[in-house]
Parts: sequence; structure tokens; C-alpha cells
Amino acid sequence: MSMRLSLLTLGLALCTPFSHAQSKLKYVNPLIGTSKMGHTFPGATVPFGSVQLSPDTDTLSYSVNGKYNPDVYKYCAGYQYEDPTIVGFSHTHFSGTGHSDLGDILIMPTSGKLQLNPGIASKPENGFRSAYSHENEIAKPNYYSVLLDDHRIRAELTTTTRVGIHKYTFEKEDSANIILDLISGIYNYDGKNVNTYVRVVDEYHLVGFRQTSGWAKNRTVYFAIEFSRPITAYGYDDFQSKKTYQGFWRKFDLKNNFPEMSAPQFRAFFTVDLDASKELLLKVALSNVSMEGAVENMKYETPDWNFDQYRKAGETLWENELNKFDVQMLNEGDLTNFYTAVYHTCLGPTVYQDHDGQYRGLDFSNGYNKDRQTMNYTTFSLWDTYRALHPLFNLVQRKRNADMVNSMIAHQKQSAEKMLPVWSHYANENWCMIGYHAVSVISDAYNKELKGIDFDKALDACVQTARTRYFEGLDSYMDGGYVAEDKSGSSVSKTLEYAYDDWCIAQLALGLKRMDIYDEFSKRSLNYGNVFDPESGFMCARLSSGKFIEKFDPLETHQAGYIEGNAWNYSLYVPHQVDSMIGLMGGKKRFASHLDSLFTMQLDDKYFEHTEDITREGIMGSYVHGNEPSHHVIYLFDWVGRPELTQKYIRQVLRTKYLAKIDGLSGNDDCGQMSAWYIFSSLGFYPVCPGSDEYILGAPLVKSAKINLENGKVIEITAKNQSEKNIYVKAVYLDGVKLKEFKLNYHHLKNGAKLVFDMTNKPAKTF
Amino acid sequence: MSMRLSLLTLGLALCTPFSHAQSKLKYVNPLIGTSKMGHTFPGATVPFGSVQLSPDTDTLSYSVNGKYNPDVYKYCAGYQYEDPTIVGFSHTHFSGTGHSDLGDILIMPTSGKLQLNPGIASKPENGFRSAYSHENEIAKPNYYSVLLDDHRIRAELTTTTRVGIHKYTFEKEDSANIILDLISGIYNYDGKNVNTYVRVVDEYHLVGFRQTSGWAKNRTVYFAIEFSRPITAYGYDDFQSKKTYQGFWRKFDLKNNFPEMSAPQFRAFFTVDLDASKELLLKVALSNVSMEGAVENMKYETPDWNFDQYRKAGETLWENELNKFDVQMLNEGDLTNFYTAVYHTCLGPTVYQDHDGQYRGLDFSNGYNKDRQTMNYTTFSLWDTYRALHPLFNLVQRKRNADMVNSMIAHQKQSAEKMLPVWSHYANENWCMIGYHAVSVISDAYNKELKGIDFDKALDACVQTARTRYFEGLDSYMDGGYVAEDKSGSSVSKTLEYAYDDWCIAQLALGLKRMDIYDEFSKRSLNYGNVFDPESGFMCARLSSGKFIEKFDPLETHQAGYIEGNAWNYSLYVPHQVDSMIGLMGGKKRFASHLDSLFTMQLDDKYFEHTEDITREGIMGSYVHGNEPSHHVIYLFDWVGRPELTQKYIRQVLRTKYLAKIDGLSGNDDCGQMSAWYIFSSLGFYPVCPGSDEYILGAPLVKSAKINLENGKVIEITAKNQSEKNIYVKAVYLDGVKLKEFKLNYHHLKNGAKLVFDMTNKPAKTF
Repeated sequence: MSMRLSLLTLGLALCTPFSHAQSKLKYVNPLIGTSKMGHTFPGATVPFGSVQLSPDTDTLSYSVNGKYNPDVYKYCAGYQYEDPTIVGFSHTHFSGTGHSDLGDILIMPTSGKLQLNPGIASKPENGFRSAYSHENEIAKPNYYSVLLDDHRIRAELTTTTRVGIHKYTFEKEDSANIILDLISGIYNYDGKNVNTYVRVVDEYHLVGFRQTSGWAKNRTVYFAIEFSRPITAYGYDDFQSKKTYQGFWRKFDLKNNFPEMSAPQFRAFFTVDLDASKELLLKVALSNVSMEGAVENMKYETPDWNFDQYRKAGETLWENELNKFDVQMLNEGDLTNFYTAVYHTCLGPTVYQDHDGQYRGLDFSNGYNKDRQTMNYTTFSLWDTYRALHPLFNLVQRKRNADMVNSMIAHQKQSAEKMLPVWSHYANENWCMIGYHAVSVISDAYNKELKGIDFDKALDACVQTARTRYFEGLDSYMDGGYVAEDKSGSSVSKTLEYAYDDWCIAQLALGLKRMDIYDEFSKRSLNYGNVFDPESGFMCARLSSGKFIEKFDPLETHQAGYIEGNAWNYSLYVPHQVDSMIGLMGGKKRFASHLDSLFTMQLDDKYFEHTEDITREGIMGSYVHGNEPSHHVIYLFDWVGRPELTQKYIRQVLRTKYLAKIDGLSGNDDCGQMSAWYIFSSLGFYPVCPGSDEYILGAPLVKSAKINLENGKVIEITAKNQSEKNIYVKAVYLDGVKLKEFKLNYHHLKNGAKLVFDMTNKPAKTF
Repeated sequence: MSMRLSLLTLGLALCTPFSHAQSKLKYVNPLIGTSKMGHTFPGATVPFGSVQLSPDTDTLSYSVNGKYNPDVYKYCAGYQYEDPTIVGFSHTHFSGTGHSDLGDILIMPTSGKLQLNPGIASKPENGFRSAYSHENEIAKPNYYSVLLDDHRIRAELTTTTRVGIHKYTFEKEDSANIILDLISGIYNYDGKNVNTYVRVVDEYHLVGFRQTSGWAKNRTVYFAIEFSRPITAYGYDDFQSKKTYQGFWRKFDLKNNFPEMSAPQFRAFFTVDLDASKELLLKVALSNVSMEGAVENMKYETPDWNFDQYRKAGETLWENELNKFDVQMLNEGDLTNFYTAVYHTCLGPTVYQDHDGQYRGLDFSNGYNKDRQTMNYTTFSLWDTYRALHPLFNLVQRKRNADMVNSMIAHQKQSAEKMLPVWSHYANENWCMIGYHAVSVISDAYNKELKGIDFDKALDACVQTARTRYFEGLDSYMDGGYVAEDKSGSSVSKTLEYAYDDWCIAQLALGLKRMDIYDEFSKRSLNYGNVFDPESGFMCARLSSGKFIEKFDPLETHQAGYIEGNAWNYSLYVPHQVDSMIGLMGGKKRFASHLDSLFTMQLDDKYFEHTEDITREGIMGSYVHGNEPSHHVIYLFDWVGRPELTQKYIRQVLRTKYLAKIDGLSGNDDCGQMSAWYIFSSLGFYPVCPGSDEYILGAPLVKSAKINLENGKVIEITAKNQSEKNIYVKAVYLDGVKLKEFKLNYHHLKNGAKLVFDMTNKPAKTF
């Protein structure tokens, strides 16, 4: 490295927060996606922070009278923009998921009479919840503020990685009650709270925990809370519906000013006298290890009461993330979309480790990472994020992604099943969705040359995972070459995804020259062919007998064989051997027309009704952008000489499926996968097959972009003649050389590159 | 110490297990107290061991339809001799308590068809429980065996401190199902199990935990299980009555051969193929810290499969305890009573610490005692055990009692309330009964010169405890000099016990020359006088107004003002100032006659029905020996010149309230307190006022006794002319000198002593 470069790097690090950086924060709107299906949260957090301190407008029960409550789905992130009231501010939220959990440690500042019941949205005055208005609401990176109308309290929230800081300004009250609701949670149900606990350490300090058994079956969040003013009185009430045991401990008043509260279902209050400033601040530190861990996290991250300093520190962290991209767009809405997408890609996976390095593993042990050589992460929505989010991380979050891969390998070692994570959060496997796509992330990390990973051990973990016979029809797949639908449902989706995953394992084995594994998994990677039904021309569910099932409707999402996608979309899922797939499906010409009809067909409403996780706007023809199985599909036109269709549909998706408004996301953001698609596609390329080192070219939406890599190098992208109409690509130049194919490789980019797209309004089938 | 003495000591330590020692084991009958009210358990354990591996004949629910189920009371120790069936063998049991918990990790070996339901006692064939016969049952120190009739399995159990070892011998089966019931527990109720977990580590090993919220609100027992033969299949079933959540994890078979089981209410099975030996052994290690802790405890204590070796090692530990006493008695039944009493005094408090020193404190931290300088203990039934058990420990378990005191001080530091334990188990305060009698144990430890305790810190802990205003009417007591009944119930019992406890604190403060504390608590120790009602002649409940309550029946146990004792018995509770109490009650003569009438009156059945925790046989007149408040009362005759009545009633109690038979205990053994009374009283002296260094003389039941002290010295007791009729004491000689008073001091005994009682059949009022 030359001295000049190194100075430049240094300069970049030092200057970014103070120069153009600040201007980018304004393009992030955390409210985007908080209406309809986006399932994002509007509250305060730092990049990849453990704490997501955000308002909950409602936290419905997952089940009512023992039956699934479909309304709960809206509240995956705790907040729906349309809701008229806020119940309180809780400290943990997923971003964009389609099933949920968390919403821990809900705090609500109140004035007036003490109420320990939240009340209902239509009558907020009957509980501690409050009406609020969007006019009085501000949502920015690491800052959320709202006026709680019923209590006349201005609430402001900011965070550090493991601490939420609350600042409440009262209108004129002399005292206030802070409600600590340990019942409230997202996707709650009767019995989800297995135990909660609060200890009043002294008049300024509480510690406690909330232990739940929900999507994560064994999860405990420990907390420590500090008040800026002394607590003058406190108490709790027990809301357990059924009390079957009265121990001897109930001899004296254990509900008021008794320093220990413990029950599965309780809400506590803490009375504080206000001074002339009418301000009350709270710090709420979390730990997944212990109450002591939470106390230490607070001491380390938030030693004093400087709200603005914590807010600013978090903003700087956000600026650093946003500054990894310097983009010029066609309009401000695009900038909002782009930087909000960048923001959304930094909301998970999240740090899952105390500042001293410890975290609770899947084996309930705490002693990990005491050397703090790596950072442990949680929340792996891998069926979503292996597609574009982790590949994006391999460009701009390389250290973090290496830590994430190591977190996955640690998960595998700790787990009872000795499997890599499928959908994992807070040291719990929730088994959501299908496949074992951690192997894709690992293979992609290998091919993108991440450092600090023991890939031989990683391959062992991949192989052990992929040989787990009891998992989701794997025995059927391993014995018969496909998952038989009569053995395990969603058999086509599984077979296709297993085959791709197996190809990823094979690629990793090839790189490591472990040829027996390469052979085994290369063979398995061909299994997609075993579910192709030549008669229908689609991938189709097969039975153990070898027969394809009879009742088959390729547009029906709930068709046997599939999960969260219909046969039309899923049949295109062979990302590792697109050419062979095209061959199976009748060759290039036929495939091109088949593929185009996906985007142009008129989808009957009855099919849409069965589609999951997306809005009507999330669909083009029968192409479903609002869910993941088709995220690579637009790029497939490149394989059959019709790149102009890739380019056209990319622009359509970027322009219609992502809108710079509250309800602008056409489907669940899925922990950043939808946003990562936006970032890649608007930059002009996409990782159709993670685990390879290839990117497939599309057509950029940016006018220009700089991707500032961690090694100080820059990928410069220029879209010459970019405009609303010039959506097609005439030619692409890499470092001045015209490309012959619609492909790039990682090594073209890793040390910086100049990529020039020559845009035009005329479709050009070839360069 | 002379060389001769030191060799003697060495010789004693080496020889005891092999000489007279072995003969004493036969005098211990763990079945005594397993019928009616004794609440002892018959299973295997080592002295003060963490594991009490014992059969449970039934474990009823604490509540039925939300109401207390009185039948559950019989099952405080899990076993009732009359019951015809055994449900299984669980690993934790209290000895002799009157409320309960525990019964963790129940294991039942079965043959024949798999059954995951225990069934009911009248139809054992409909569940995994089994009929058994006492003919085929053996209960000995550290060994329990029974033939399970329904399964034709001989079960044998032994333990180390933290590990239970099961040996099952089948009749002819080729395979067996071992049931692991994580639902079962003592004093269970719907919701008590908050979470349970099993992980199948490999075909030989399981780990898991059972987390409960019962008498101990926050308690988790971790375990590790090793099988002597491989598990060939396994599974579980979920018995939760209400299922309100079905997560995504239920996509494939998670109930059979899936290595992780987690639910609040489940029972698992493990199938094992047997070989020609038809033997299967299990080791079950416990930890209160973690599953890893349990694994390490197993590795350390039971590295191999030698059942007989572990049994023998435990027997040796028992021999060492029994050999602290060499007694000659009038008949073999007395020997059984005596050594079974010694056995019962070594069943608690129990070791609560992993072999590496760690334990979970009341603050949920695990990092204590890593230096292993002390041993931490749990299960402090202090309202019972401060009276005679801990004073007995100060003679023969000095190191252990110092560790116990340190465990109490640690409890105080860790607790939210910063109080010493009241009734504490497994790092949980259950607040059972009244007073803060840990201060008595501490003061007694000080006056009996225990080493290794920081008594200044201990005094701080005592003072902080005794000043906890919100505790049980202490505010009323501190402000008004007595607990006002309208402020806090059981006010007389509380006032009397607080006054005694305060005297203990004062004595400790005096010894430490902390005179301000001495003054404060000396004043408080006089408060008993404030509840003496001159009109009735009894201690009587008073209101805040100063008035005594009006409806007063001194024989009624449920009389306002008292707990577990009536005014007749409780009014005699001023152990620290007996003379003053006698003065209050009309002087010596009147008191002598009053006291005698307690033993001679005819108690109406209606009063007995209201008496708690004891059998009809536990009562003499209205003197209740089967519960604790009167345990010192017999000795009060000594103060009024009627020692012959003390002597007479002691013999009556020893002969009628303790019988060498299954139902021989007249009340709950209360963690050894009833047994400690037996030991002291049969040796001829009793600590009427723990916290002082005095023992009050009674009349021995032994013919002779040696108490082998830990310092190698011996207290030799000889009862000359001892017989069934010679129950009176003519004279007592200490080291050859005739005593003038019916008292001894600790310093008379601590370096050995020769105590000779000259027995006679004629009452002698004075020596």
C-alpha cells in the first residue's frame, strides 16, 4: 500500500462524519415499511445493535381461544403506522420478519393516576397507553421521538449497542409513574412468558429478566435499568389469569415497596418526583447472559446521562455505514429509497454478546468469546438473507460477515442437532422455512475470500448439517434423490434448495481440495432434475413411488410441493446450473418466452389471496417480488440472450416495488434481504448464485455510485446517459474495457473498479 | 497435643469404618418417619448430600381446581409407607418438612409396553408406576432397593454427594424403556414447571434441566445422565393441558429421536437393549449452576460404573457421622432411635455447590466459592433448626456449621432484601414461618467459638435483617415495642421470637464490643413483656391501640396472635430471660404448677384438630412435642426447683414421642430438629437458649455415651444405675465434681469432659 493511499484511507475515516456524511442521514426514513407488509420498526438503534428501542402500537396475542390470530401478523415489528395509540417502548425488535418474537422490556412513562393495564386502542384513557399523532413523531437513525398526548410527555429515544436511553419531558407534572411491563411482547400468547423478575437494587437501579418460550423456545433477556432521579415508591400487580399456588411468602405486602418481584405475568410501576426541568431519563441495558452482564454493559457503554452524546455517537456509526455508498440518483425519492435500504441492511444480524465477550450459547453455556477476538451475532433469517444480504456484506461488511459466519459455526457446535442455523435467533433455532442456507453464506464467504474463518471446520459443519437425516425430508432426499412429498411436505421447494445448497458445499470442498466431499455433494447438487416433470414443464412434487402428483396447478401457492411460492416461480430455482435448467425446460428460446410470460400474465385474484407476506403491489404478473424465492429470476433473461428484459423488469421493480413512503415496501423486508436486492440491483449487478464468485449484470438505477470498500479501495459505478427512459444498457465497461458477457467476478471488484454502464432507451439484446 | 493423643485420633479415623462402626449402620432405619407425620424419605443419600435419591409413591398436586389440596401434605417427602405403588425415583427430597418442593428428575425403569402416563395407584397397570411390597424393600444409609412388581425389576439406588446411581436388574427382558419424567415433582401444581429441557448428547449421555416456580420461586435443577448401555431409541410426549402456540419448529418429527426436547410439561423415554446380565445402570448428576456443572460433577464423583464402590463410600461417610456418638442404651429400639436420629440430623442443610465451588446465588450469579475455601449449604428451616440442630452441630459438625453460617451470610449479601435466611432453599427465600432465627445460629456459633466466620460482618447482617421494617410487622414492633395484631398477624409469636432473636444479636454485639448495637437490641429483647396480659396470665395479642384483644382462648392454636402453637405453649417462649418470664407469670411456685398443668391437662379433641403438623401422639396434655415452639419447655422446671418434672417428662417424651417404628415420629422431623432434640435429651442436656453458651441438664436415656469431637477430644457421659425406672437424677458430676446447678457451659465440654449422672427412681427436687 502506498503512503498516499493509506493517508487517503485515514482521511476518509476521519472526515466522513463531518463532511458529506451528515447529509445522508436525512435520506434514511425509518418509517418506511412500517405500514402494511414491510414489518420494519421506526425506533432507535445503532447499526447491528443489540437494542432496537422502538414504540409498540399493539402487541396482540398470537392465539385467541387457542386458535391462531391472523391479526398478530401485522405486529411482527410491534408498530403499525395506522394505529392511533402507543402502548410503550420496548427494547428488541426484528426488522422485516414474517413471523415474530421479542418486544422485550416495555416501558411507558405516564402522568396522572397510576394505571397498570394498557387499555385498548379505542379507549386509551382507560389504560396507560396513549394516543399520539404522526405530526409529533420523529424517526431518524438512532433517534425516535413522539409526543404522548394522553400523558403530555415528549418521549425521546436513542441507543448504544446494548443500551436504550429514554428521555421523557413532562409538561408540568410534579411526579410521574414509569410503567415497566414485563408481560408485553411481540407474538405473545398465554404461557409464552415463563418467568419474569425485577430486583430493586436501590432508589436508582433495577435489574431483572424476562424469560420466554415463543418462537425462541428458551430465551431470557436480562436487563439493568438506571433512573436519573430517585424512585420514591414502587410496586407491581400480577396479571396471571390462573393462580393455583399461594406459598408461604405471601404473609406481608410483597407488592408494594418490596424489592423483589417475580411472576410470569406482572407489570410494575416506579414513581419518581420531578424537578423543575421536568425531565426524567432512563437507561436500559440488556444482556443475554445475566443481570450482572447488563449492569456491566451499562457501565461500559453509557457511564453518564448525556443523551445527546449517545445520540450523536450512534448517528456517527450510521454515517459510517451510509458513507460506504456515495450515490447520485435521478431524484430525492431514489436517494431515500437507497439509503433507507442501506439502513435496513444494517438492522440484522445483531450483536449478541456482552461487552466482555460472553454470550449464552445454544447449549446454555455463557463462557464464549471471552477473548473478544470475534463478535457474536444473532438473528439469522437465512432462507432470506443468503440471497443478497450476505453477498452484499461480502463487499461492505467483510469483518462483520466473517464474524457472522463464525457465529454460525459456533451455533453448529453448540446445537443439540449439530446443525448450522436455519432460522436462528437469540441462541435458539426456530426451524422457520427450509434449506440449510448457512452453507451458501459460508461458501460465498470462501469464494469472496473472507479472513478469520477456519473453512475446513466450516466445511465439516456444512457436511454434518447436510447429512442430518431426520431434518425435513433429508433422509428421503439422500436415499431417493429428491424429497418425496409423501415423506415430507414442500418437497419441491426443499429438493431445489437442497440441491443448490449441496452445490455450495461442493464448491467449498473443491476449493479446500476435499474431493470426496466435492464428489458427494456435486452429485447431490444435480437432484433438482429429479423433480422436473417433463409433462407439465414445471418442477413438480413426486411421491416415494416415483410418480409425480396428479392435482397440479402451477399458479397455486398452496400447491403441494411448495412453500411461499408457486410452481411458476419455484421452478426457476436452479441458480447454480441455470443452463441445465433452461435445457430441461425446452431450451433458450422457449425458456425466454416462458420466463417473460411470468411477468406479463394476468394473475387471478384467487391466487393472490393465497400468496403470503406480500402486498398486491408486490406482484408483477405472477412474478412475486415481495417474497424471496424469485429474487434471482429477473436476471435469468441474461442467460437466454434477452438482457433487455432483465433490464426492463429491474427498472419496473425498482420503481414500483420500493416506494419512498411509509407503505412503500411491497413485502416483508426480511431482515434486509429486500433492501439488499434494491441496493445491488440499483447499482447494476446481482449475486444470482451466492457461493460462486459471480455477479450478473442488470441495469443500474443510480446515475453514479462509489462503493467505499473496507480496504480503502473504491468501486466506482457510472451510468452514462442515465434517465427515467434510458433503462437499457448499451454497453458496460470495466476499468475501460468493454465487457463481452453480462457477468462480473468478485476479483474484478475487490480492489476497486470503475464500472461504466452506457444507458439507452432502446432495448439491446446483446452488447 | 501429645503424640499419644494424636495417634489415637489417627487410629480412630482409620479404624472406625472397619471396627465397631459397621455395627452402627444397622441401627439406622431410614423408613422411620415415612408414615404419618414424620415426612422423612427412605431413599439413598450421603451425609448432607445434594442428592436424595428416593422413591416417590405419589406426588399429588398442591391444588385441585384452584383450591389447596390437603392430601398433598402427606407427600412432603414424596413417600408414604402405606401407599401400594411407586411412581419412580426422584433425586431431591426434604427430610421432615411441613411444606414442600423438590422431587426433581423422576426416573422409572419399565418393562413391557411403553407408557408415558404414571397411572393411578389403584390401577398401576394403566401407567408406568408399579406395585411393590415392603417385603422386597430395603432402606439403609446410602442404599435403597425395591422390587418393582409390575415390571419385574429389582431397583437399587445409591449416591455420592451430587450423583444418584441407579442399578436396575431385569428378570428376562431383552429391552427396556427408562422413563424420565420432568413433570413429576413434590407439591406440584399447574404452572409450577416453568420450563424443562433434555438434550441427547450421544447414545450414552443426556443433559437437561427442570425449572420450577413453587415454594422456591426461581429454581432450576440441571442434570446430566449417563446410561451404562446405549440408547437405541427415544422420544417424549408433551402433557401441557393448554397448547396456545405452534411455532414453525413443528415441521418434522421433533418427538422421536430428535435430540432436543423442551416444554414445560413432558415425559421422555429411552429405550435400551439389555445384554445377558440384564443389568442397566444410570448415573444422574445434579447441579444448580449449569448442565456443564452437572457433567463435571459426574466426572469428578462417579467416573466409572462401580455401584458397590459408591455405595460403600457413602456408607463410610455415614459410619463417620454415626461414630461421633458411641452410646449404650437400655435396648436395641433405643439404639435404633438414637442412630436414626443422628442420621436424620445429617440430612440437611445440604451441600449446594458444584464440586468446582460454583453455586447459583439468590442474585442468580454463579461465580461464588470458586476458591472452594468454604462449602455452601442450602435448606435452612431456621424456625425449627436454630433450637437444637445447629447447637448440636456446634458440638459435632463445627466445620460444617461454620460453612452453614457463612452460607447464611452469603445469602444475606445476595438477597434483594439484604436479609439473612428465614426459610431458604436452593437460593430462594420462601418466607415460611416467622422470626429471623439465623441470628440465633450466628450468635450461638460465636459463643461456641466457631472458626472461619467474620463475626463483625455477620453482626452487620443480623442488624440489617432485624431492622427490615417491611418484614412481618417489624415496623410495628420497632415503633411500638410489640407487633400489633391489627398490623401483622401471629403478632404474639412474632413479638416473642423477635425479642429472643434481638437478645441473640445483643449478645453477639456484646462479645464484639459494639455497644451501640448491644444497647439497641438489649432494649428490644425486653419486648416480650409488652405482650404479657396480666389479666389472663398469658402472652396475648395486642392491638395498635395498646389494648389486648378480647376473644381469647389460650388452648386454641388458631387463636389470633399465634402460629403453630397456642397461647399455652407460646407464652412460655422467653428462653433468654426465663426468670423474668416466671416473674411475670406469678413467681416460681405458681409457674411450677402452671407448667405442670400443661402436661397433665386433658385436651379437648376440638383443640387437637386445629393443631398442625403433628399426630395425636405428639401431644402430652396440651404440651405439643410434635411441633417446635415448646421444645425448650420441659427444661423450664429446672428454673423453679422442680427438676424432677423435667426429668420425668423428658423420659416420657423420649419413650412415647419417638418410637423405633415406621410411624414412630410424632411430628414432622423438621430437617432434623426433632431428632436433635432426641439426641440432646437422651444425652442429658439441652440448649434451652441458643446464642448463650449454656446447656440445661435433663436426665439421660443413654446408659453411657461418648461424643467424639472433631478436635479429637471426647465427652464421656455415664448414667449410673440407668434403668427403665431410674428416670430421675440424684446428682451430676462433671469431671468428678458434683454440680450445684442444672447447667453446663460450652467451655466445660469443648475439650472433652466426663459427665456422670447418678440415676434413681426417686424424684429429687434438688441435687
